[in-house]
Amino acid sequence: MTISERFAAMAARGRAARLAVERAGPEARSAALKAGAAAIRARADAILSVNAKETQAARTRGESAAFIDRLTLDADRLEAIAAGVEAIAALPDPVGAERRRWTRPNGLEMVEVSVPIGLIGVIFESRPNVTADAAALCLRAGNAVILRGGSETAGSSTALVSALREGLEAAGLPADAIQTPPDADRDWVTAMLSLDEGGCDLVIPRGGKSLVAHVRAYARTPVLSHLDGVCHVYVHERADPEKALRIVLDSKMRRTGVCNAAETLLIDAACAPALLPVIAGALAGAGCALRGDDAARTLVPGMKAADEADWATEYLDAILAVRVVEGLDAALAHIAAYGSGHTDAIITQDEAAARRFLHEADSAVVLHNAATGFSDGGEFGFGGEIGIATGRLHARGPVGAAQLTTHKYIVLGHGQVRGSWPD
Amino acid sequence: MTISERFAAMAARGRAARLAVERAGPEARSAALKAGAAAIRARADAILSVNAKETQAARTRGESAAFIDRLTLDADRLEAIAAGVEAIAALPDPVGAERRRWTRPNGLEMVEVSVPIGLIGVIFESRPNVTADAAALCLRAGNAVILRGGSETAGSSTALVSALREGLEAAGLPADAIQTPPDADRDWVTAMLSLDEGGCDLVIPRGGKSLVAHVRAYARTPVLSHLDGVCHVYVHERADPEKALRIVLDSKMRRTGVCNAAETLLIDAACAPALLPVIAGALAGAGCALRGDDAARTLVPGMKAADEADWATEYLDAILAVRVVEGLDAALAHIAAYGSGHTDAIITQDEAAARRFLHEADSAVVLHNAATGFSDGGEFGFGGEIGIATGRLHARGPVGAAQLTTHKYIVLGHGQVRGSWPD
Repeated sequence: MTISERFAAMAARGRAARLAVERAGPEARSAALKAGAAAIRARADAILSVNAKETQAARTRGESAAFIDRLTLDADRLEAIAAGVEAIAALPDPVGAERRRWTRPNGLEMVEVSVPIGLIGVIFESRPNVTADAAALCLRAGNAVILRGGSETAGSSTALVSALREGLEAAGLPADAIQTPPDADRDWVTAMLSLDEGGCDLVIPRGGKSLVAHVRAYARTPVLSHLDGVCHVYVHERADPEKALRIVLDSKMRRTGVCNAAETLLIDAACAPALLPVIAGALAGAGCALRGDDAARTLVPGMKAADEADWATEYLDAILAVRVVEGLDAALAHIAAYGSGHTDAIITQDEAAARRFLHEADSAVVLHNAATGFSDGGEFGFGGEIGIATGRLHARGPVGAAQLTTHKYIVLGHGQVRGSWPD
Repeated sequence: MTISERFAAMAARGRAARLAVERAGPEARSAALKAGAAAIRARADAILSVNAKETQAARTRGESAAFIDRLTLDADRLEAIAAGVEAIAALPDPVGAERRRWTRPNGLEMVEVSVPIGLIGVIFESRPNVTADAAALCLRAGNAVILRGGSETAGSSTALVSALREGLEAAGLPADAIQTPPDADRDWVTAMLSLDEGGCDLVIPRGGKSLVAHVRAYARTPVLSHLDGVCHVYVHERADPEKALRIVLDSKMRRTGVCNAAETLLIDAACAPALLPVIAGALAGAGCALRGDDAARTLVPGMKAADEADWATEYLDAILAVRVVEGLDAALAHIAAYGSGHTDAIITQDEAAARRFLHEADSAVVLHNAATGFSDGGEFGFGGEIGIATGRLHARGPVGAAQLTTHKYIVLGHGQVRGSWPD
């Protein structure tokens, strides 16, 4: 059998399993997740031993320290993974939730309820923690999942998947609700993306830009993802200076490698002379390099010049582009031209300006007087997220368990027909 | 310029227009639709004259009477089109509607609001009425639209689009919110489907199976559609005989050429001896041919035999496949194997059986004691529909104006940051 045929068989097993997982109900899904967390703990020695070999192999290949850190598990990190699965087990189960109910003049009662999406494919890089996290969120929402992680940690991922499958079986659910391909052949990715009928209902890529771009380019299935997080903080002329300072600093420097970190500061010309030097000083003090337009550089001597490419760059680093703008319309025009539709914030005490910004900045998450870091499933109260989506269909912004459901309509009648028929 | 480049320019104009349409607010959109309906009436002579030429050309080519009927406009039909646009103008505007609001422990207020999807492409066959209907629904939800209808009625569609564009301008909105390609070259369809960045945010095919299959096979953009409507009515052993009779008759014979018409009757072995002959008699009396399995044919002498292909066929005609099943599980298994995920109904007085069917039949719309014909945007109270979707992402079932929106999250803060910073 080709890998494509083997993947089709795997997908068919996943589809069958997900119906069982949906019908078993929320308690069974919670029990499976709890038992999965217990199995991760019980198998800790085996998981860490496989991971140690993979870490050693990466060192031998001369991989970077950052890369090795990402793929390394230790007892604490494994305990955090198990605890994360337990936390998802404790989340409210979204399946079957009534979204809306209304009654038609003919007496028909219409109910929109949440149902699982179905079979979800997750394609990620060499981060073993994503394995458990993504599988648990998919299962919480009644879905089956096929996980394809980076080849460098295929053994660690498979060991974690085995533990979670043990948890499913302990709860009386089919293990095939969580699957991973048996080897690291790249053709599995091709198969996951290209099988449109009978394959995954949805593919979620988690990782860097090249991974996401590859998935988007080749997927025949729907994809939830974001390519870039070019997030803006716009300091309006009527900004509270203290809030502006703290929010810019936090949006850029709390963590620089995350997609919701600010990459560009827009500041009104009216307040820039008073505010920008203070903000720039605080950023520099925190280790941030600034790249500005001419107006910004006039106000902050020594600032490097930004070029056109800077406005569209997601640095994922301690670098911030700075542009002085002539008011709200100019700020919105800049975001429309260079933004990535991810997350943008306005800092102002002017409610009318805030309202315009919040409605006209065409991004998944827009904030008023709050840091861009709040664009996050945990901060939204979703209890976690499988990623942030910037597409316009189905889900935008943080994707938690509830966003991993779709809906069906249930129509309750008592004999209604549409036509007229003789008695 | 190639057609692909010309389409990209058209899409860019559409995107710019849709931002203006979104920002102009609900009253402006209503005014544009009302003015568009008035322009259709004012231009009736010109529209009917173009249509008469196209109808004559189709006759000369020897097209079927049914085909010619579909593309023919007359004064009454044109008035119905104008009235339909006015009805959509009177619908509630879904843009900006608050879907959810919640407050986080840190005081952040989170608001999920409906926003337009963006630029929608509609690809349809030679039915001029679809032009106005689809354009009006897209505009109601704040979207821009590019309409590509069948080449046989390109002139009629363009004349209707011109009237609707006049309506947009009369309301102070950009005409480019409603566009149609300037000629009938098939490369426009290719361009609409293949431009993933900067093209349509969503494509909706409206038409027969070959059109939908073509769009699905080639689209790089998300698609809302259904390929088949193999809808089932399942008569459970505890069905009320009177309701069963009327609902089966209505589901099959009210209109046979629509996607929500029943194509297969499943009936429990326990009630089939008493009920099936009565139902079969009524169907035959209404002109319906039946194709049954052995058990059904034993109960209804003279019934033709169904073969495997019948269970998966959308007849769109006065033909019904009939299968006697051994209870709820067998009915659900049949629907899982042969259904198209569109619409399925159970007829029973047994609430527990109904509940299981409604939750386990994995279709966009499931009904209890009501005819399948209620799977319709108008019957749902959506004020119309652009189609019915059987995919699992974004929208399933009838797609009305509200389903042509997506959401954004607005986060309202008063200075919140995530990290700890020195004062």
